[in-house]
Amino acid sequence: MKQSKMLIPTLREMPSDAQVISHALLVRAGYVRQVSSGIYAYLPLANRVLEKFKSIMREEFESIGAVELLAPALLTADLWKESGRYDTYGADLYKLKNRDASDFILGPTHEETMTALVRNEITSYKKLPLNIYQIQPKYRDEKRPRYGLLRGREFIMKDGYSFHANYESLDETYEDYKKAYENIFTRAGLDFKGIIGDGGAMGGKDSQEFMAITSDRTDLAKWLILDKSITDISEIPEHVIKDIKAELAKWLVAGEDTIAYSDSSDYAANLEMAATAFTKPTSYTEQGELVKVATPDAKTIDEVSELLSISTEQTLKTLVYKADDEIVVVLLRGDDELNEVKLTNHLGADFLEPASEADTIEIFGATFGSLGPVGLSSSVKIIADRVVETVVNATVGANEDGYHYQNVNLERDFTVSEFVDLRTAKEGEPAPDGQGKLKFARGIEIGHIFKLGTRYSESMGANVLDENGKAKPIIMGSYGIGVSRILSAILEQFARINVEKTFKGDYKFAWSMNFPKELAPFDVHVVPVNVKDDTTVALSTEIVNMLTNKGMQVLEDDRAERVGVKFADSDLIGLPVRVTVGKKAADRIVEVKIRATGDMLEVNVDDLADTLAILNQ
Amino acid sequence: MKQSKMLIPTLREMPSDAQVISHALLVRAGYVRQVSSGIYAYLPLANRVLEKFKSIMREEFESIGAVELLAPALLTADLWKESGRYDTYGADLYKLKNRDASDFILGPTHEETMTALVRNEITSYKKLPLNIYQIQPKYRDEKRPRYGLLRGREFIMKDGYSFHANYESLDETYEDYKKAYENIFTRAGLDFKGIIGDGGAMGGKDSQEFMAITSDRTDLAKWLILDKSITDISEIPEHVIKDIKAELAKWLVAGEDTIAYSDSSDYAANLEMAATAFTKPTSYTEQGELVKVATPDAKTIDEVSELLSISTEQTLKTLVYKADDEIVVVLLRGDDELNEVKLTNHLGADFLEPASEADTIEIFGATFGSLGPVGLSSSVKIIADRVVETVVNATVGANEDGYHYQNVNLERDFTVSEFVDLRTAKEGEPAPDGQGKLKFARGIEIGHIFKLGTRYSESMGANVLDENGKAKPIIMGSYGIGVSRILSAILEQFARINVEKTFKGDYKFAWSMNFPKELAPFDVHVVPVNVKDDTTVALSTEIVNMLTNKGMQVLEDDRAERVGVKFADSDLIGLPVRVTVGKKAADRIVEVKIRATGDMLEVNVDDLADTLAILNQ
Repeated sequence: MKQSKMLIPTLREMPSDAQVISHALLVRAGYVRQVSSGIYAYLPLANRVLEKFKSIMREEFESIGAVELLAPALLTADLWKESGRYDTYGADLYKLKNRDASDFILGPTHEETMTALVRNEITSYKKLPLNIYQIQPKYRDEKRPRYGLLRGREFIMKDGYSFHANYESLDETYEDYKKAYENIFTRAGLDFKGIIGDGGAMGGKDSQEFMAITSDRTDLAKWLILDKSITDISEIPEHVIKDIKAELAKWLVAGEDTIAYSDSSDYAANLEMAATAFTKPTSYTEQGELVKVATPDAKTIDEVSELLSISTEQTLKTLVYKADDEIVVVLLRGDDELNEVKLTNHLGADFLEPASEADTIEIFGATFGSLGPVGLSSSVKIIADRVVETVVNATVGANEDGYHYQNVNLERDFTVSEFVDLRTAKEGEPAPDGQGKLKFARGIEIGHIFKLGTRYSESMGANVLDENGKAKPIIMGSYGIGVSRILSAILEQFARINVEKTFKGDYKFAWSMNFPKELAPFDVHVVPVNVKDDTTVALSTEIVNMLTNKGMQVLEDDRAERVGVKFADSDLIGLPVRVTVGKKAADRIVEVKIRATGDMLEVNVDDLADTLAILNQ
Repeated sequence: MKQSKMLIPTLREMPSDAQVISHALLVRAGYVRQVSSGIYAYLPLANRVLEKFKSIMREEFESIGAVELLAPALLTADLWKESGRYDTYGADLYKLKNRDASDFILGPTHEETMTALVRNEITSYKKLPLNIYQIQPKYRDEKRPRYGLLRGREFIMKDGYSFHANYESLDETYEDYKKAYENIFTRAGLDFKGIIGDGGAMGGKDSQEFMAITSDRTDLAKWLILDKSITDISEIPEHVIKDIKAELAKWLVAGEDTIAYSDSSDYAANLEMAATAFTKPTSYTEQGELVKVATPDAKTIDEVSELLSISTEQTLKTLVYKADDEIVVVLLRGDDELNEVKLTNHLGADFLEPASEADTIEIFGATFGSLGPVGLSSSVKIIADRVVETVVNATVGANEDGYHYQNVNLERDFTVSEFVDLRTAKEGEPAPDGQGKLKFARGIEIGHIFKLGTRYSESMGANVLDENGKAKPIIMGSYGIGVSRILSAILEQFARINVEKTFKGDYKFAWSMNFPKELAPFDVHVVPVNVKDDTTVALSTEIVNMLTNKGMQVLEDDRAERVGVKFADSDLIGLPVRVTVGKKAADRIVEVKIRATGDMLEVNVDDLADTLAILNQ
């Protein structure tokens, strides 16, 4: 394909509105353009990457018997009213009316559509299991679209749905998908982790999220591609390294989720879902006498601890929540943070929010910062994290503004309805599976598989007759991949900083893209340096034809641009191999550059195909 | 692919709401399901057909240097306000607001989006021409969705746009597209005509429509596939033929447009655009004396002609229109019909509508049915079809209710501002290119190419600098294909009636599908008759593996259904070849049925691949 015919509008500078490197480079390298806030056009290069990724998905899904179809994106609200989500989905749901004033939505996901389709067509367990998927733009009216393709209002998803007569069949398909997802992301070249996910929002039970890891900023060598002019990273002067580090630090680590994983086992979970290890201590300190102390102006745990010269571990934190209109008091050790997802899931609540100060005053007779469990009415439900049980002689608010109690002890001074795992796990603590310690990483959610169970089939009456002729709700699974996000995830992991030594001996560096082989928009970038030179043009054409005939996809920079512009654009576009047709064209010698390593070699055109084939292995 | 894993919900009866055979069969054979009025889900079989058609398009477009990208479907209204279409597009435009109350639309077409993209990225003529396209669902809030995929509210389009520095370049690309479209539709197996189109609505100049011909109902043999039990169509009893004809007649001829084409040249045009031939006669009858006659109760041309015993060709028809608020009087010969598109285009009007009776009374002093050109004020603009010039001693309304003039003659009794081609062409008249006679056909518009010129670049300020550094509006073309319509067009042309002789000697017939090779969802349908018989299953598996290894796409009916059900479903699904693994499985003999011809042959499995390869040529 001739570059002059492609629309690849590269920019000389990073776009000013980008906060993450993937967003910046996708725009700068001419892969995407924003059409309106959070809504992008995928230009020809990006479209090619997406199509390649789709092909990988289709191959892997075919191998697990999943069948592709295509539902509409413009959906009547009826089915969403049936499932209840029309009202509960929130402001992210695009709603519109058609000319007859009927309610429509733009589909953010298709559980309802697919459940209705199967409900209408399948009546017997004999026609199950069924495993269908589609690849399609989805719509979510994000409050604050950002990070390029990572949080947009129109984005491409692969969404799959499976339908079963029993849970064993669902389990099998779920495992099939897990493997298919691992294959897909591995083939795409991504560094990813499958983690325990939060299926709550989708009404699910078991769920696993697939996260592309983005937080590795410490290993500088990973980020640099050294030009052949530089032998080793150690040769780069300290002030240049400092500048490079500053450039790297300029870009936010993409990914809204923190992953907690064990450094010595397979355990990995979304931090929101990460269980905490807990062992009940076998001995306790002796209980001291309850004392009330004045703590003027000390409101936070830190302020109180400092005032009283105690460690934060010696304090208890008292939080007040409203869960579906019921007041719940939560106790944590002072140094712990509440994990709201754990609390919500434990309570089985639809909505959870901090109680108002008015509510708090009514229950405690005091304001935030002076609350505690001592002397509370027994009608108030107190849930405590398990660690609270281990705190002896604790300091808590005295339910009187400006006062705290010290030497507060469980049972003697207050009671707790339940001890539950409520706290947020901390980096460095023992992993909940008992193996190794927890480490944290940031990641981009690229896939998610759920066991939906009968959440949708029950509310929408999707039943099949079982072996005994009895109607039973269909058991469902759902399986998503964020297709357009993959582009961002790839860039977060494969963006590189090229470092080059100039003729003057200075060190220059610049961002580049470095696409993994399976997803690169083309395999080879052929760059004839001087398109006014007949020998160069003839040799370039010969190379393009030869490589194309060998089944390679070739982008040829046929533009009459200066070589500096051509090389800079080539670095931005980021194909795995660049073949430069330059001064030695008359001798049939071209320069091959392997992008990932920065290696360069001169090759006779007659050996080029073989050389590339070897390099490609 | 195993049929039990596909979602192919065939029906035993035709759906009651279908009026055209393509709609009926697509639903009945389990290719599509309506999700809401005019909005369909493409089930796995349809999705495969669409993907195959997309592949054909991609190959052909790559060969003309067109590059694929993907713009969003959810568009800010801003650009449409710039182009002016936000207000003029009408009620078909889906409008919505996002959470910030900004105006959005669902794109029915993407001239604005693509013009803005190119306007922002391309500033010099040196970067032109550019030729981009996308394949994407489009949205049009049709007043009355109908005919299945033919007139829906969400439908898949291929829309392409080209950008040029001069008209020569546009002409070249336009010709490239013409050829690419011909290749695409030919490869898809369609019977189509490229015709002169009406580009008015898109603001275009030259335009060509591609129509899939649907009106051939006369040649019964074309519609029938005779089972091997029937030697020849002549053997089928008259009453069965009558029933078959009645069944055929039950279904409307699909296609909203009439095509006028020459029976002996390439001339073909949308009837709305079909020019009429006209030769000025060399001699005239002698003019008679103007006479006013009473014509009580005779209002229409037919009534007046009958009353006065004259032919309708001896009368003139007087019509009154409002074109952008200007009154225009139109004269036609009595037996001709006005072509409103010709009148609109001739006047360059945005809106055209018949004048009200009140307006009419003011101008003529008479009501509809008694109007005529005699004695009209010279300030009234009278446009006449050219044929009017040939009518001597005409009869026209006397502008007095209940009276007509006879022996009315041009110049002596009335004057005309302009003679123009205004009438609708009639079947059987000489073709306008002077070669042969006009024939009419009905067709489905499957493609449309336009020379847009500067319609969008001027209103949206999309300029490039030319060789002299002067800003000039970019010259554009646009090129559409109705992708989901292709499915309907294929079915309109390839639906067939299978006729079979039963053991009792009765003749049975049933609708079937007969997909052309390049678009069939699979190449071969392997049907093991008894899936409880190990020999059958083993041989079926062997065949599937063997054909798959030869690169064929195979659907295997692995369901435990009765053979009658399997064959009926196979006929509905309509793959080109059916391989039945039946009673002779132990002898490795299978039955091959060629759908298009109804031919059957018994083949040893060891010869099967070769046989299919030969048949496939």
